[in-house]
Amino acid sequence: MTELLLKNVRPLGGAKVDILIRDGRIACIGGDLACGDPAEDGAGAIALPGLVEAHAHLDKSLWGMGWHAHQAGPTLEDKISTERRLRRELNIDPARQSARQVALAAANGTTAIRSHVDIDTDQKLWCFEGVLATRERSRDVMDIEIVAFPQSGMMIRPGTLELMDEALANGADVVGGLDPCGIDRDPKGQLDAVFHLAEKHGKPIDIHLHEADELGAFSLELIIERTRALAMRGKVTVSHAFCLGMTDRARAHALVEKLAREDIAVATTAPASRPVPAAAELRNAGIRLCAGSDGIRDTWGPYGNLDMLERALFIGLRNNFRRDDEVEYALHICTQGGADVMALKDYGLREGAFADIVLVDAETVAEAVAARPRRKLVLKRGKPVARDGQALFTVE
Amino acid sequence: MTELLLKNVRPLGGAKVDILIRDGRIACIGGDLACGDPAEDGAGAIALPGLVEAHAHLDKSLWGMGWHAHQAGPTLEDKISTERRLRRELNIDPARQSARQVALAAANGTTAIRSHVDIDTDQKLWCFEGVLATRERSRDVMDIEIVAFPQSGMMIRPGTLELMDEALANGADVVGGLDPCGIDRDPKGQLDAVFHLAEKHGKPIDIHLHEADELGAFSLELIIERTRALAMRGKVTVSHAFCLGMTDRARAHALVEKLAREDIAVATTAPASRPVPAAAELRNAGIRLCAGSDGIRDTWGPYGNLDMLERALFIGLRNNFRRDDEVEYALHICTQGGADVMALKDYGLREGAFADIVLVDAETVAEAVAARPRRKLVLKRGKPVARDGQALFTVE
Repeated sequence: MTELLLKNVRPLGGAKVDILIRDGRIACIGGDLACGDPAEDGAGAIALPGLVEAHAHLDKSLWGMGWHAHQAGPTLEDKISTERRLRRELNIDPARQSARQVALAAANGTTAIRSHVDIDTDQKLWCFEGVLATRERSRDVMDIEIVAFPQSGMMIRPGTLELMDEALANGADVVGGLDPCGIDRDPKGQLDAVFHLAEKHGKPIDIHLHEADELGAFSLELIIERTRALAMRGKVTVSHAFCLGMTDRARAHALVEKLAREDIAVATTAPASRPVPAAAELRNAGIRLCAGSDGIRDTWGPYGNLDMLERALFIGLRNNFRRDDEVEYALHICTQGGADVMALKDYGLREGAFADIVLVDAETVAEAVAARPRRKLVLKRGKPVARDGQALFTVE
Repeated sequence: MTELLLKNVRPLGGAKVDILIRDGRIACIGGDLACGDPAEDGAGAIALPGLVEAHAHLDKSLWGMGWHAHQAGPTLEDKISTERRLRRELNIDPARQSARQVALAAANGTTAIRSHVDIDTDQKLWCFEGVLATRERSRDVMDIEIVAFPQSGMMIRPGTLELMDEALANGADVVGGLDPCGIDRDPKGQLDAVFHLAEKHGKPIDIHLHEADELGAFSLELIIERTRALAMRGKVTVSHAFCLGMTDRARAHALVEKLAREDIAVATTAPASRPVPAAAELRNAGIRLCAGSDGIRDTWGPYGNLDMLERALFIGLRNNFRRDDEVEYALHICTQGGADVMALKDYGLREGAFADIVLVDAETVAEAVAARPRRKLVLKRGKPVARDGQALFTVE
């Protein structure tokens, strides 16, 4: 039996308490708890549940590889093909780069990650195997869910489907998909294949949908129809869903209601440069909403740092959230929202839950989001994995 | 004669050089310079010209006053009236709060600020006098330009015009204005008064224009007409100019061309939650574009930190800038762009210019924007004013 006593912390900004952790779980939350050593004094810091990075690309990123000027053209297709070329040219090793990202994410207080991982006929299972190896090596510090993601298209790249099938048989947790119209030019074909893989392997689905306006709405309807027909209620996530930010708010709202009926979740990165689903509208409809950093400092773009407190800020800014309860909801999306989508077991700051906890110095949760202070202490299953913004481990 | 030698720095990410500073100006930029003590070793850091905060509200902010839950309703009018009430209730002292913001801005590498300062019939000149006092006390560490700003309206608040006139006679540098339709309900009346004050005092203009779409376009046309009629070419700035982000791109583009003909500058905060002027479109039209943090952590909203490197990131994200030259332009808006709008004399990293210099550890300028590293050293007129993210002075 291992114990750790976290003294003087304020769960979600509430009153000061002690948290007793036993065997990786929260055993007790209360005043003036006592136990044997060791103890950590939180000195009044806010305790948050571990941040959840629900849309990452651990197989990508040039993090730690020096600065590379962006080379890709403006379209989605440009970025996909540039990346396919540069992966080998620059040796963007998925095992190494995913390990670096796990350490960075932990330093920023993230304790669980859903990562899309490219599968295509050029890389085959290289990316998948790299991230899988990192997942094994970092079992004690990070929960990682792998989405088998056909980044370069499925229908336009024969052989991809078989590779995805293989990945799903060998440890991938989720069936991915991508712009069935925009990229694959065959929405019925792709979505039938994706849902078939999900049925065959008994696994959930997470589909990237960048398609805007009516095109995206069309693809979304096809996804909703299949979710209902195949009784996959609660098992499907749509990432980005930019079409829900369309100008025709009545049309968007009708789509939101349909998504709610099938309990289809949405993952957002809250980008500033394009229309996005309105977070408050989704919340009011009861839709599970999670968030992620997407690719960071990769061949797609120069930004990103896997900081989910900063992502909460971006959600707040993007949705014009100003009241404390709104800012708290932005953080909720980056904590419980992610846990709901990933179906993390025993998540949260309550007795019995796993002791995945982040401490930050701030007066309120809203201030923590606005100021994004360095993470003072990060616990994974009760064990310190980062302190003062630095990971306490390497997994390379 | 005072000298400082800045060794091993890379101006805008270029090759390593030394910068010799004499009497507050850059005397020489070159390799292996020598002088008497003292010397600062930049160790290969990037040297940037001092960041320019071209749209701030130094008289506001609750910075350092503890967390206050946001109380204002959703409209602009709600925010204005809530603030007028809370200024006295919370004792948001303009002298103290502007001093705190000057220290914060310097810590983040800013060396010049244009601040709008509220003038209304409740506060009268309280805010103006507070910021004026801070300007006097911080002459050695920050250039501050004061805009006499009728936040609560001018035509709807008789007496405001006279107070603005008084402020302009006593040290305010710029005539402010605000939503001539939306707030003042009398566009001809307000704009005639604003331009009259500018003529009378021989001072430039900076007008807040939040009005969207066609309403904003109408007000913008009235501003352009007066700028031309009164030969104020190059002397007018429009802050926010959200209407330039309107959906009708042809209409917006025609407005941009009219602005360019009168050399009317634009100030942006690059908000994520609403349409904004397209930075690249303005650049292509030759329009001077500057940026600012707007109010930070005030009764309007919880965000903001006066970090103009972070503002450059927001500009990059908002405009979907990915290439290095685009990201460099985002930073240009926060440096030279601000200097152009404020008409700062002898600005820039060149011999003869004032030695307002910021050092940051990054490989490239684009990386500095993406990563926003702590400012290693900030010089104002050759003197260190901040180090490792901390101001070396207090002005309270």
